[in-house]
Amino acid sequence: MLVTLTTDFGIRDGYVAAMKGAMLRVAPTLTMLDVTHDVPARDVMAAAFILRTVVPHVPAPAVHLMVVDPGVGTDRRAVAARFEFDGEEHVFVGPDNGLLPLLAGASAVRESVVLDRPSAWACPTPSDTFHGRDIFGPVAAALADGAELRHVGSPGDTLASMHWPLPLKDDEGMTGMVLHVDQFGNCITNFTAADIELHSHGRSFKCYVGSAVVQLHARTYGEVAYGDALSLFGSNGHLEIAVHGGNAAELFNVERGAPVTLVFEAARVPSYVSDVVHA
Amino acid sequence: MLVTLTTDFGIRDGYVAAMKGAMLRVAPTLTMLDVTHDVPARDVMAAAFILRTVVPHVPAPAVHLMVVDPGVGTDRRAVAARFEFDGEEHVFVGPDNGLLPLLAGASAVRESVVLDRPSAWACPTPSDTFHGRDIFGPVAAALADGAELRHVGSPGDTLASMHWPLPLKDDEGMTGMVLHVDQFGNCITNFTAADIELHSHGRSFKCYVGSAVVQLHARTYGEVAYGDALSLFGSNGHLEIAVHGGNAAELFNVERGAPVTLVFEAARVPSYVSDVVHA
Amino acid sequence: MLVTLTTDFGIRDGYVAAMKGAMLRVAPTLTMLDVTHDVPARDVMAAAFILRTVVPHVPAPAVHLMVVDPGVGTDRRAVAARFEFDGEEHVFVGPDNGLLPLLAGASAVRESVVLDRPSAWACPTPSDTFHGRDIFGPVAAALADGAELRHVGSPGDTLASMHWPLPLKDDEGMTGMVLHVDQFGNCITNFTAADIELHSHGRSFKCYVGSAVVQLHARTYGEVAYGDALSLFGSNGHLEIAVHGGNAAELFNVERGAPVTLVFEAARVPSYVSDVVHA
Repeated sequence: MLVTLTTDFGIRDGYVAAMKGAMLRVAPTLTMLDVTHDVPARDVMAAAFILRTVVPHVPAPAVHLMVVDPGVGTDRRAVAARFEFDGEEHVFVGPDNGLLPLLAGASAVRESVVLDRPSAWACPTPSDTFHGRDIFGPVAAALADGAELRHVGSPGDTLASMHWPLPLKDDEGMTGMVLHVDQFGNCITNFTAADIELHSHGRSFKCYVGSAVVQLHARTYGEVAYGDALSLFGSNGHLEIAVHGGNAAELFNVERGAPVTLVFEAARVPSYVSDVVHA
Repeated sequence: MLVTLTTDFGIRDGYVAAMKGAMLRVAPTLTMLDVTHDVPARDVMAAAFILRTVVPHVPAPAVHLMVVDPGVGTDRRAVAARFEFDGEEHVFVGPDNGLLPLLAGASAVRESVVLDRPSAWACPTPSDTFHGRDIFGPVAAALADGAELRHVGSPGDTLASMHWPLPLKDDEGMTGMVLHVDQFGNCITNFTAADIELHSHGRSFKCYVGSAVVQLHARTYGEVAYGDALSLFGSNGHLEIAVHGGNAAELFNVERGAPVTLVFEAARVPSYVSDVVHA
Repeated sequence: MLVTLTTDFGIRDGYVAAMKGAMLRVAPTLTMLDVTHDVPARDVMAAAFILRTVVPHVPAPAVHLMVVDPGVGTDRRAVAARFEFDGEEHVFVGPDNGLLPLLAGASAVRESVVLDRPSAWACPTPSDTFHGRDIFGPVAAALADGAELRHVGSPGDTLASMHWPLPLKDDEGMTGMVLHVDQFGNCITNFTAADIELHSHGRSFKCYVGSAVVQLHARTYGEVAYGDALSLFGSNGHLEIAVHGGNAAELFNVERGAPVTLVFEAARVPSYVSDVVHA
């Protein structure tokens, strides 16, 4: 079984290699797929957002090792769980800090265990500061290699919960936020295509974000003139704000968390939006 | 067959992992070799330059997956092709936007197909914005796994063309440009060793670039004093400007595209060069 | 046998991929583990520090390919060696510039050879500037694939030596330095847990570094309040200075090489420390 790796370790230090080494000690022929090691430090939500765009595309079942772990060494629990995603089964290994509920939703969890049996790990005396190397990695490797959840931990109760911020909606529009700014400066929002369809009743919309009003909505970047801003549904089904051949986040001075307002055709533009935009 | 990957996706997001996941769904034991995912956004020429330094060193035949694709979702074609490089056969998969002609030269192409058969891909309804994950990656995986070009597309006519800028030459010298600034700040030019030998007739030369006149030419960095600038023929056969133990691009304030002039021994220095350099 | 890779090549260029390609030409099924390619340019000590945190965790025996090579193409020797680390055997391949003595200590070397036989390499006419691709990589691949040291070189005498800076110690405290600043801004010092235990005789200590006096010593980050500074023994056994949820290096304006002073309980604070700190 494939193991994907999502961490905030960065790639300048030896942390990722030490964790992978410990995993290869458990399962020497393991296939590992790096998702990213550049999650912003300790940012559980960013980690979950990034991995969500990957899970549906890897061979299932797969083990997803997530180590974004600000509470390492405290009494936060270490967990592993089976969960469902897009009708396929997967396994999660990581700290119990909301990562899995954000990734897949609490209702997707089929079975979870607390990693409370040091004797079952490769490293019976784990360090206090690097559970990725000493607990999570080896457990993920063991699970990918055929171990069952009950071999690596004891049945746990409900996982710690965390939720995505949901957009506000009324007849005139929707207000949400930028969930992620990607490598190209595209601003990915928490509006899904399904959401917008449900509330717009087919009306067109203007999109207010940062210093911009984006009026063009298209299928892909190249459908608008070079340098023009547009909104489109990205490859993960979310509305994103982009600039053809440019960097929307830089141009409109937008960061993750920035509010985004959609105003449907013929609706009144709320004053808290129209006042701040140079439209 | 090995697949190399060259993209401008960056490694902060999940794009590379989603593409690799889709490839592993097609060919679970595929060997993938990352060239770089840090090609400057949408820079077809940089992608081709970087991969050129790699192709002669990988086991041949190999599949080279290049996804630098500003025209994704428009009517630019998606292609795959067999080509020759240094006497060995390779396969290219990517958008038809000049990448392959830059990589290998138009005359190196032996057979090409247009990827116009969604039924032959792993993802019959590709997204409009991520053909790396939905078309190019799976096709590259299938070709590496033994599929033939005719299985994945229809015979195409000539590929879209793009050329490297060539240096100007006369009896007194040559004028070219910096093609690439590498990790160490070395400035790699579009003068090849063969070119310079042909036109210099064995004369030594001075090299004018940015704010510098580089007078030392050596075999390797350590042949000049620490901190001294030099020109040398780099590991890919091109003339490069370097500083022993330093960063030439920063020191001389040079970026990719900067003009470089070679003046042969005993030749007159052109005024457009001598005027701007603090020599 | 696994090969780990530690270089200062960066991942923007094709250098790493060219080296890996050359290695796969020698051993097509080789397992390679990237430690990091972001060692600061030409920084032999940083490379050794980073790899030391990884070696004890990979399956042994393993081949460790280190290419941080400011002297490439000069008369610095290319070497390979068997060495012991934590009671396990490993193999080193790289330039003879102090990397292995820093990594494992000179006394850990069991056998070393000078790579002086081009006919035994994959590339009989290596470039002058890229021995990673033309010599070290292929030799590492051959060794991982079962070749013996005597197949790739001739018995050499002592390796070039380099030493870690050691802390100064007296009854009142210890003075050392920051060896490494990691991805999270944690400042890892050259004090080991064993060293401190030996000299403190169980006394508590204050830690002076940059603009800070760190008074809390804990087992892990989450044991102190969010935003508080602490010292702790990191996952590699060295004392490190950290800020719970923050970046100690930025906050205290500390870089690698910065002095760090420990003052034991009830001892006098040296004036060269107390004068500069806003305590």
